[in-house]
Amino acid sequence: MIIVLKPTADKTQIDHIVEKIEKLGLKPWVSEGVERTIIGVIGEEDVVRTLPFEGIPGVEKVLTILKPYKLASLDYKNTPSEVNIGKGVVIGGKRAVVMAGPCSVENRQMLLDVAQRIKKSGALILRGGAFKPRTSPYSFQGLGEDGLKYLAEARDKTGLLIVTELMDIRQLDTVMEYADIIQIGARNMQNFDLLKEVGRTKKPVLLKRGIACTIKEFLMSAEYILSGGNFNVILCERGIRTFETFTRFTLDINAVPALKSLTHLPVIVDPSHGTGRWGMVNAISRAAIAAGADGLMIEVHPNPEDAFSDGDQSLLPDKFVRLMKDTAKVAKAVGRTM
Amino acid sequence: MIIVLKPTADKTQIDHIVEKIEKLGLKPWVSEGVERTIIGVIGEEDVVRTLPFEGIPGVEKVLTILKPYKLASLDYKNTPSEVNIGKGVVIGGKRAVVMAGPCSVENRQMLLDVAQRIKKSGALILRGGAFKPRTSPYSFQGLGEDGLKYLAEARDKTGLLIVTELMDIRQLDTVMEYADIIQIGARNMQNFDLLKEVGRTKKPVLLKRGIACTIKEFLMSAEYILSGGNFNVILCERGIRTFETFTRFTLDINAVPALKSLTHLPVIVDPSHGTGRWGMVNAISRAAIAAGADGLMIEVHPNPEDAFSDGDQSLLPDKFVRLMKDTAKVAKAVGRTM
Amino acid sequence: MIIVLKPTADKTQIDHIVEKIEKLGLKPWVSEGVERTIIGVIGEEDVVRTLPFEGIPGVEKVLTILKPYKLASLDYKNTPSEVNIGKGVVIGGKRAVVMAGPCSVENRQMLLDVAQRIKKSGALILRGGAFKPRTSPYSFQGLGEDGLKYLAEARDKTGLLIVTELMDIRQLDTVMEYADIIQIGARNMQNFDLLKEVGRTKKPVLLKRGIACTIKEFLMSAEYILSGGNFNVILCERGIRTFETFTRFTLDINAVPALKSLTHLPVIVDPSHGTGRWGMVNAISRAAIAAGADGLMIEVHPNPEDAFSDGDQSLLPDKFVRLMKDTAKVAKAVGRTM
Amino acid sequence: MIIVLKPTADKTQIDHIVEKIEKLGLKPWVSEGVERTIIGVIGEEDVVRTLPFEGIPGVEKVLTILKPYKLASLDYKNTPSEVNIGKGVVIGGKRAVVMAGPCSVENRQMLLDVAQRIKKSGALILRGGAFKPRTSPYSFQGLGEDGLKYLAEARDKTGLLIVTELMDIRQLDTVMEYADIIQIGARNMQNFDLLKEVGRTKKPVLLKRGIACTIKEFLMSAEYILSGGNFNVILCERGIRTFETFTRFTLDINAVPALKSLTHLPVIVDPSHGTGRWGMVNAISRAAIAAGADGLMIEVHPNPEDAFSDGDQSLLPDKFVRLMKDTAKVAKAVGRTM
Repeated sequence: MIIVLKPTADKTQIDHIVEKIEKLGLKPWVSEGVERTIIGVIGEEDVVRTLPFEGIPGVEKVLTILKPYKLASLDYKNTPSEVNIGKGVVIGGKRAVVMAGPCSVENRQMLLDVAQRIKKSGALILRGGAFKPRTSPYSFQGLGEDGLKYLAEARDKTGLLIVTELMDIRQLDTVMEYADIIQIGARNMQNFDLLKEVGRTKKPVLLKRGIACTIKEFLMSAEYILSGGNFNVILCERGIRTFETFTRFTLDINAVPALKSLTHLPVIVDPSHGTGRWGMVNAISRAAIAAGADGLMIEVHPNPEDAFSDGDQSLLPDKFVRLMKDTAKVAKAVGRTM
Repeated sequence: MIIVLKPTADKTQIDHIVEKIEKLGLKPWVSEGVERTIIGVIGEEDVVRTLPFEGIPGVEKVLTILKPYKLASLDYKNTPSEVNIGKGVVIGGKRAVVMAGPCSVENRQMLLDVAQRIKKSGALILRGGAFKPRTSPYSFQGLGEDGLKYLAEARDKTGLLIVTELMDIRQLDTVMEYADIIQIGARNMQNFDLLKEVGRTKKPVLLKRGIACTIKEFLMSAEYILSGGNFNVILCERGIRTFETFTRFTLDINAVPALKSLTHLPVIVDPSHGTGRWGMVNAISRAAIAAGADGLMIEVHPNPEDAFSDGDQSLLPDKFVRLMKDTAKVAKAVGRTM
Repeated sequence: MIIVLKPTADKTQIDHIVEKIEKLGLKPWVSEGVERTIIGVIGEEDVVRTLPFEGIPGVEKVLTILKPYKLASLDYKNTPSEVNIGKGVVIGGKRAVVMAGPCSVENRQMLLDVAQRIKKSGALILRGGAFKPRTSPYSFQGLGEDGLKYLAEARDKTGLLIVTELMDIRQLDTVMEYADIIQIGARNMQNFDLLKEVGRTKKPVLLKRGIACTIKEFLMSAEYILSGGNFNVILCERGIRTFETFTRFTLDINAVPALKSLTHLPVIVDPSHGTGRWGMVNAISRAAIAAGADGLMIEVHPNPEDAFSDGDQSLLPDKFVRLMKDTAKVAKAVGRTM
Repeated sequence: MIIVLKPTADKTQIDHIVEKIEKLGLKPWVSEGVERTIIGVIGEEDVVRTLPFEGIPGVEKVLTILKPYKLASLDYKNTPSEVNIGKGVVIGGKRAVVMAGPCSVENRQMLLDVAQRIKKSGALILRGGAFKPRTSPYSFQGLGEDGLKYLAEARDKTGLLIVTELMDIRQLDTVMEYADIIQIGARNMQNFDLLKEVGRTKKPVLLKRGIACTIKEFLMSAEYILSGGNFNVILCERGIRTFETFTRFTLDINAVPALKSLTHLPVIVDPSHGTGRWGMVNAISRAAIAAGADGLMIEVHPNPEDAFSDGDQSLLPDKFVRLMKDTAKVAKAVGRTM
């Protein structure tokens, strides 16, 4: 850590800071430059990271040297991690994995139908929400455990694996019982109690990026899960909130190579939420795979016009077939399979 | 709701949409303009609000007429609501109410000290976190129930009321037992299960705006609580995330008059989080009261340099005394007391 | 246009609005709903678009039906436009076109060297700034007309075409004399006087998206050029400003399919500015082509460590060779050549 | 400057960087920590600031110590600057100065009327655009020099001073002839050629903050003018672009105390553009003065419903009278006059 002092900082202030650093068992190193005095702090940066040096008189700013996350970092593990979901499905390997299905599980028959169709198209994992986070209290809130049961039935009938969202800590055991991957949604990316709980399991976790969270904060949330002992974390870029309103969110394609340069964890992309428009999902899926994503999460609905949620961004099964074909060609161009 | 069609929309598409609207028991009204055909939907807009009309072939965009929140709206109640906290303290009345205290409850003595000092300065409510949402799993996570006990003791000794954050549904009963106001933090503004639970109580709720949430979404989250039967909701603007990095967040002062033009609920401002710099808290407190805020939430710490969290933005008790004096003058200038 | 009235709007207010609309030669249509009265305005929307109806007593909000741009719209021309640059180079056709070169023209020899190397790699157009917009008055401001002369010499020696930025209207004639494409930089996207001047020429214009400009505003700026009579406009997505600071900007990949769904103009992408990190340029170039971009603009420098500007984001010529190969595979996968 | 190396940086890379620094005539200082090696650069930071160290192999990140602006900084001049406009009007002194008038000069009579009314209310400066930057090429573009003549006539008749926008370098002499303050609009905050030209004059310049520009960039643009020799610069916060769409922009009230902590230049606020809604202008004007702004810029129109531009955010003269009264009380509460 480097503490930059104001040009007006006096000896008393400098001594006070030096003393503070020494009390923490660290070594201060004072360098008096022409325009600014700076104090380097030598030793374990974690000890001082959260101390409010910027609030101390005489200090202009504080510069940190190290990354605040450890286990998620390439410094900790410099080869890509593969998350094993079961039945031979691995995320983070050569094969880009596609998760698809309706936004919400709306009823049994619809789910079984869509599961069969996406299976035929080459998807490996079925998505579907049983508990739904909805902006309005008056919107459909999901089928709850019945939804989970339909998902399990669809798994049995198709061989697909299942990813579904956990919203409420009290449902942890229930969701654990049915899901192959637990999804933590964007709104819960910083629900730290929830992160701690899934960190205590060994279940694969799909962690979605919060819409206003930086890449650093995203990795800090992953760190919560890793530091609990669960290394089966898959990161999912799903669009951030910007000033642009034509699209529902702004899918941050930069996040794919950025994350790959910082972490060993696999990274997938959700173009359905990232754009909010079904007409753009194919193009952004191709882009994601081209940029190096390890997989995709796609909303597919047999009849989007009647979807209980997210119909605007859901693909018809036919369009999903097309997406799988188009994206597979791009996957091949970047040396992957699909 | 108004559905604007593409110039290329044909009769089959129009008929399909008309039929869809009629099936919902609503009345479509088709107007063929020179450049665009539009379809008005007459009847209960809620029925159709969440339907994905934008995804239907032939549709260019959908314009909504009504606000998606009801109970929070001035249309529902057009006089300001006063939230009664107890011991004669009311938020939303003529008196602007100040909540102050440390970010985290760090130990018993420090809390009792700071409570006495803020009480003397004119604050009515003591803030302090017992359960802390922290970006890093390696940061101080709060004292838990012990923290709540110290808060209760400080209340007994000073007559101040208490506001503290609820993060985890499983702690609802515990927090209810000690707190006079339950705070829902910015990261949980869209933790809908939590909102539903506090909506089932009658306890005053301080709802902080999420850092990437629009004013409309803020009111939708309030609606979750109101629709559960709890009308004791206080809104708190605490800064949104923008591209500016000099300040920790960008306090959205516009939100104060904006919310006042849309809702009857009281609105307070948190300049400590909104700026992240103690040197700016006095100026922004004055601005908030000048803009019409019903109160302030201020971080005060007897020794910010050693604070376990948020030291950069915490005021020394002396500076808080000054803030109370400066702000009281502005309160008077806008016809309020403090 | 649809004018939504407040629930409290009274007859006098409604009559006043109706009268206002009629005075403009348009036809108002009043619909009294259960919860809201709305007034539709039938006729040429342009007449009323800029009128401040939202400021009139009794009005809650105004909804517009039509797009504010015309000539740039697919409604005006529903087939992709090809911009002919000369020497058989066309932007917007089957071949994705690559523009490459140093951020600034720094000296003659360096420019000739880099031109030869990018030519060999398959780029068709040489980029290089002679007039440079720099955040700091103390930074290198470009070689001016000498820079243009070196660009022209590089064109003569290699057969590449030239794109270079025009910043100052007073340099229009000079830049016109040397450039094959005039670049309007992001900071000047809403320099309307400059847009009008290039709109009076027939020279191809590369219009970069402003860092805080919506897709609609981007098309409005293109409209300035088109409405002057110059249809040779190429749009360039180069990153928008968001809260994320790991990358210099957030490249908005959504803008590619979004623009393709709204306009006939060709769209290229600048991954160098969009990311600000050379290590991410290859991945984002692949993503851009996969998403449907008509070309790329890439910063290449023979020795980025000594570049006068943008060295952090410039590729070494060797890495550019690799980029061309990698991206060509993706181009093929989406049915294009490079 | 501090260069933080990657944990994988080897001796060759370190030597290369050290050599680079020495070649620039500066002194490198290498510190090998437990987890990271860092290299301090001692000497004139400006020499190295724009060098792309982040692009050099082995470098993880670069931290700068000094501010990139000098003349605008409190380090250069640590007392508030007062900008003398003439006729005894000073901006940056004890009196908060109000500039008011229509967005555009629409015709002679309207301007004279409004000038007389704002004069009576206590405003000292008349605002009005003769050259207008408009998003659409089809909108009213201003009266040009005629507009300037009407402004001059209004000045003669009322004693008010005049502020008006310069958009195009070619109009510099013309605008100089009429204006007492030259306004550089938000869209031109980084039109560096324009900044250089006004920097060569001694005319007071009102520099508006660009909607996506950081406080640092704002001060860098001021630096362009100051470094040309013109110290008569007034900064104007007028709202930044964020995700919030209820208001036209998000007025960044934090910018007032933030700028005051960084620069000696006076700071005013434009609540009309910052909110885009006339109903919020009074509240935000009070907030701005309470936060320490040195003045206000307010749009006033005798008949906003018929304004050629910005009618939604313009105040009626009566409401402006009220604003002056309300704001004067707040000014007094913070020790200023109005």
